[in-house]
Amino acid sequence: MAKFITIGERIHCIAPSIRKAMAERDPAPILQRAEEQLKAGATYLDVNIGPAENGGEELMQWAVKLLQENFDNVPLALDTANRKAIEAGIQVYNRSKGKPIVNSADAGSRIENIDLAAANDAIVIALCSADGIAADNDERMMHMSTMLERGLEHGMEAEDLWFDPLFLVIKGMQDKQMEVLEAIKMFSDNGLNSTGGLSNNSNGMPKHIRPIMDATMVAMAMMCGMTSAIVNPCDLRLMETIKSADIIRNNTLYADSYLEI
Amino acid sequence: MAKFITIGERIHCIAPSIRKAMAERDPAPILQRAEEQLKAGATYLDVNIGPAENGGEELMQWAVKLLQENFDNVPLALDTANRKAIEAGIQVYNRSKGKPIVNSADAGSRIENIDLAAANDAIVIALCSADGIAADNDERMMHMSTMLERGLEHGMEAEDLWFDPLFLVIKGMQDKQMEVLEAIKMFSDNGLNSTGGLSNNSNGMPKHIRPIMDATMVAMAMMCGMTSAIVNPCDLRLMETIKSADIIRNNTLYADSYLEI
Repeated sequence: MAKFITIGERIHCIAPSIRKAMAERDPAPILQRAEEQLKAGATYLDVNIGPAENGGEELMQWAVKLLQENFDNVPLALDTANRKAIEAGIQVYNRSKGKPIVNSADAGSRIENIDLAAANDAIVIALCSADGIAADNDERMMHMSTMLERGLEHGMEAEDLWFDPLFLVIKGMQDKQMEVLEAIKMFSDNGLNSTGGLSNNSNGMPKHIRPIMDATMVAMAMMCGMTSAIVNPCDLRLMETIKSADIIRNNTLYADSYLEI
Repeated sequence: MAKFITIGERIHCIAPSIRKAMAERDPAPILQRAEEQLKAGATYLDVNIGPAENGGEELMQWAVKLLQENFDNVPLALDTANRKAIEAGIQVYNRSKGKPIVNSADAGSRIENIDLAAANDAIVIALCSADGIAADNDERMMHMSTMLERGLEHGMEAEDLWFDPLFLVIKGMQDKQMEVLEAIKMFSDNGLNSTGGLSNNSNGMPKHIRPIMDATMVAMAMMCGMTSAIVNPCDLRLMETIKSADIIRNNTLYADSYLEI
């Protein structure tokens, strides 16, 4: 199995400093968050520009160029509901370090983002939901099949669909956690890649608990064959756990210095 | 599934202070380690008196009574190669908080410890090895069957055999780790309980790495359905991870205070 891929989630317009920087085209706050995440070991960086209904194309192109020019063509996940902005971003994207990721498609109203990824030789995050959260794994697998077929029909390789089971909040849906993990196992058993916004599980928990719960969850998900996750790479405990699980999975060779690499 | 059971490993005659305390029948050092482990959340305490070829029976009885009288009949794992000492310990053991655990049997020269457990209505740790480490899971499962049959023939309940896949050292056997975890999954799929000396995986690693690796390993093992482990309960990161995985497995109900319980 390949080394686990982390997609850093911290360039997100929901953060006031990032929202302002995007509005004003101010590189500094964005570059700072990029540097922090890359230093902490992120593979990909997610660039969330929000709905971006006005000027999204130009904004995404600016962000993609800014990040790739400053960080040696760092691979990016382009994250917005504005499809034209994703396409615009891909136009200026340098893929020498990895294909762009389209974030995201689902099996409902966002299924055309699979076609977009196919047309642009991109990876797509495929949420196993349609209109609302899947009720169970039968439904998740149905959505997975729908999206996989759609991608294959449009000429994608199966490996470029990264299936997201949608992590659920423990506070409220504690009894559904193992089913989400089993969905990842099903993807893995079918040779499929997976990803997801892992920290959603710990939403609403006290701040000091979240890294503990997230680290536990990622180890369990990696046991199920999960291949990537959208995370805060500045969460040291989480990253240590990912690196350790990669050693246990024999994806990276053990060295006493493995945590520093 | 029931809450994960931790067996505290720190009353072990390999520790010079404990060896001395056992030799001199000095309660203080033993009671101190017991208290530390119980405070940290251990369910069972392991009492390892070594080979104890001379005077083992009397020593084990002394230790069992000492611990149970001081800690409200705390359940114990009786750990020695001296079978008579285990039997002697069971004679004075109060089972109001749980059956005694015989530590341990294997499928080779120690198989009679299963008979001993059966004769005394005890739990037995059943190492899936005979003469040397099992080469693969075929061999582990063969040993498991041998011991399970032996126990059933002698009237044991299957749930009282706690199968130990034997954790292997990552430094040297990195490529075998997933197979060990899969063995636990096989036990679990067969409805069987499991345990093991989890920290063996991190033997030889720098001291600061061991809790990180052990915590990752226990989360992965719990994803596979592991039901107990022999651990250092004073390893905070490990215990936090066990409690968190029990939340994810829905074995304990989430509360914001779950780490303190």
